[in-house]
Amino acid sequence: MGRFTRNNRVVAITKILMENPNKIIGLNRFTELLDAAKSTISEDILIVRETLEKLNLGKVETVSGAAGGIKFLTDISKEETLEFIKDLCLLLEDKSRIVPGNFIYMTDVMYNPHIIGKAGTILASFYNNFQVDCVVTVETKGIPLAYEVAKRLGVQLVIVRRDNKVTEGPTVTINYVSGSSGRIQNMSLSKKSLPKGSRCLFIDDFMKAGGTALGIMDLLKEFDSELIGIGVLVDNIETNKKLIGEYVSIVEFLGINEEGKALINPSKCFK
Amino acid sequence: MGRFTRNNRVVAITKILMENPNKIIGLNRFTELLDAAKSTISEDILIVRETLEKLNLGKVETVSGAAGGIKFLTDISKEETLEFIKDLCLLLEDKSRIVPGNFIYMTDVMYNPHIIGKAGTILASFYNNFQVDCVVTVETKGIPLAYEVAKRLGVQLVIVRRDNKVTEGPTVTINYVSGSSGRIQNMSLSKKSLPKGSRCLFIDDFMKAGGTALGIMDLLKEFDSELIGIGVLVDNIETNKKLIGEYVSIVEFLGINEEGKALINPSKCFK
Repeated sequence: MGRFTRNNRVVAITKILMENPNKIIGLNRFTELLDAAKSTISEDILIVRETLEKLNLGKVETVSGAAGGIKFLTDISKEETLEFIKDLCLLLEDKSRIVPGNFIYMTDVMYNPHIIGKAGTILASFYNNFQVDCVVTVETKGIPLAYEVAKRLGVQLVIVRRDNKVTEGPTVTINYVSGSSGRIQNMSLSKKSLPKGSRCLFIDDFMKAGGTALGIMDLLKEFDSELIGIGVLVDNIETNKKLIGEYVSIVEFLGINEEGKALINPSKCFK
Repeated sequence: MGRFTRNNRVVAITKILMENPNKIIGLNRFTELLDAAKSTISEDILIVRETLEKLNLGKVETVSGAAGGIKFLTDISKEETLEFIKDLCLLLEDKSRIVPGNFIYMTDVMYNPHIIGKAGTILASFYNNFQVDCVVTVETKGIPLAYEVAKRLGVQLVIVRRDNKVTEGPTVTINYVSGSSGRIQNMSLSKKSLPKGSRCLFIDDFMKAGGTALGIMDLLKEFDSELIGIGVLVDNIETNKKLIGEYVSIVEFLGINEEGKALINPSKCFK
């Protein structure tokens, strides 16, 4: 294999940074792989950083010290964010999505890697500087989005379950009241899955009154951990009395009108 | 914003290709974004392709025709695959993973984006040329891995549920017999979630006798769809009589020895 040109090296560095969001990568990983001097690699990194920032494709930060190196932070331009949100509103407003009981069918959207990849980029970019230790979600529909956010923040995903499983070891279970239905429900989390003192971000598909988020707060207390942010794809603003404080949403659901059409607007968070 | 140099352009092209695995991207997306002629972009793409292939970081294919362009296929070198599998065996053999009932606690592994990203790359690379239409999994533990494979293959994820939800519309439910316990269980899938005639890849965390995979086959028949492959992270080879035919696994679980240690070997699929 011949020596690499600068063009080759910047391609390789870009690829490796993107595969490892928010992870510190020592320069020697690049000097070894690309058979180049540290000063050469430093110049390459400058080119990668400038290009990504110019095009709003992400940020490259330098971390100094013995365990230092560079890390890639996910980012997205305001224009791309707003265009994505506009398209998502149109997609969710499609009449064929209304299922009996006046619910919106969103499963295909929540499991579409292209859509969830973009939504995850938007939420992760928002929480880049919040020192998040892990991303928490409740099974099932929000898992791909929560995974995408966790991956882009470079942290562990934690999935709270509705039931106990024999393969999870000792488990903490709490009861919580669903904010909209008033019913009492269960949430379980394996004791092994969350270290004490974690700063957690809760990600979910849909928020109504916020009962689930409130349950997560209670559950995290049992782990001496803290909820530092909440992000959802769809916020149902028909229900005014949110049980929780601040959170971030991507679109807002205003209800279904007389013609049986769902009303979906861009959320105010990214305007 | 000034004009872009070749270095800038190859960085941007790499980033955009990686964000859209297995999606055809027309060259005009690049000519517009980077304000360059088609011939220039074609030369840039050649550099990106050569670099990624030289370093086994992925493949760039040209698709001709009116809707043509280029697409990025995920790939990983044999050395990186084997090193990852070796590390995963060591991680899973850790004694503290054994929970009462002689199960291995693997939840942290299944929800670790760094590990699942690599495992997903390995499985997606294997199935790159299988004309997969969607990736199917059963809730809950295999979802991140299945999502990662779906994303890298550029296809929709479909999650089969254990119960019915009001937000899913009409649903098909089947019963199946768990191969290891012999118990009858349910699987449900919304009729909206899978188009007829789909070629499906089933991805899961763990395989024992293969009862779940057999259930998936039956369920897919109800959707006039086909199971064309099965990929799991851990194959329990204690259970010899697999109910199903061919499948791909990353590591093999041989049981727990007298000292209470799990025995995990690299699977034969990637040797």
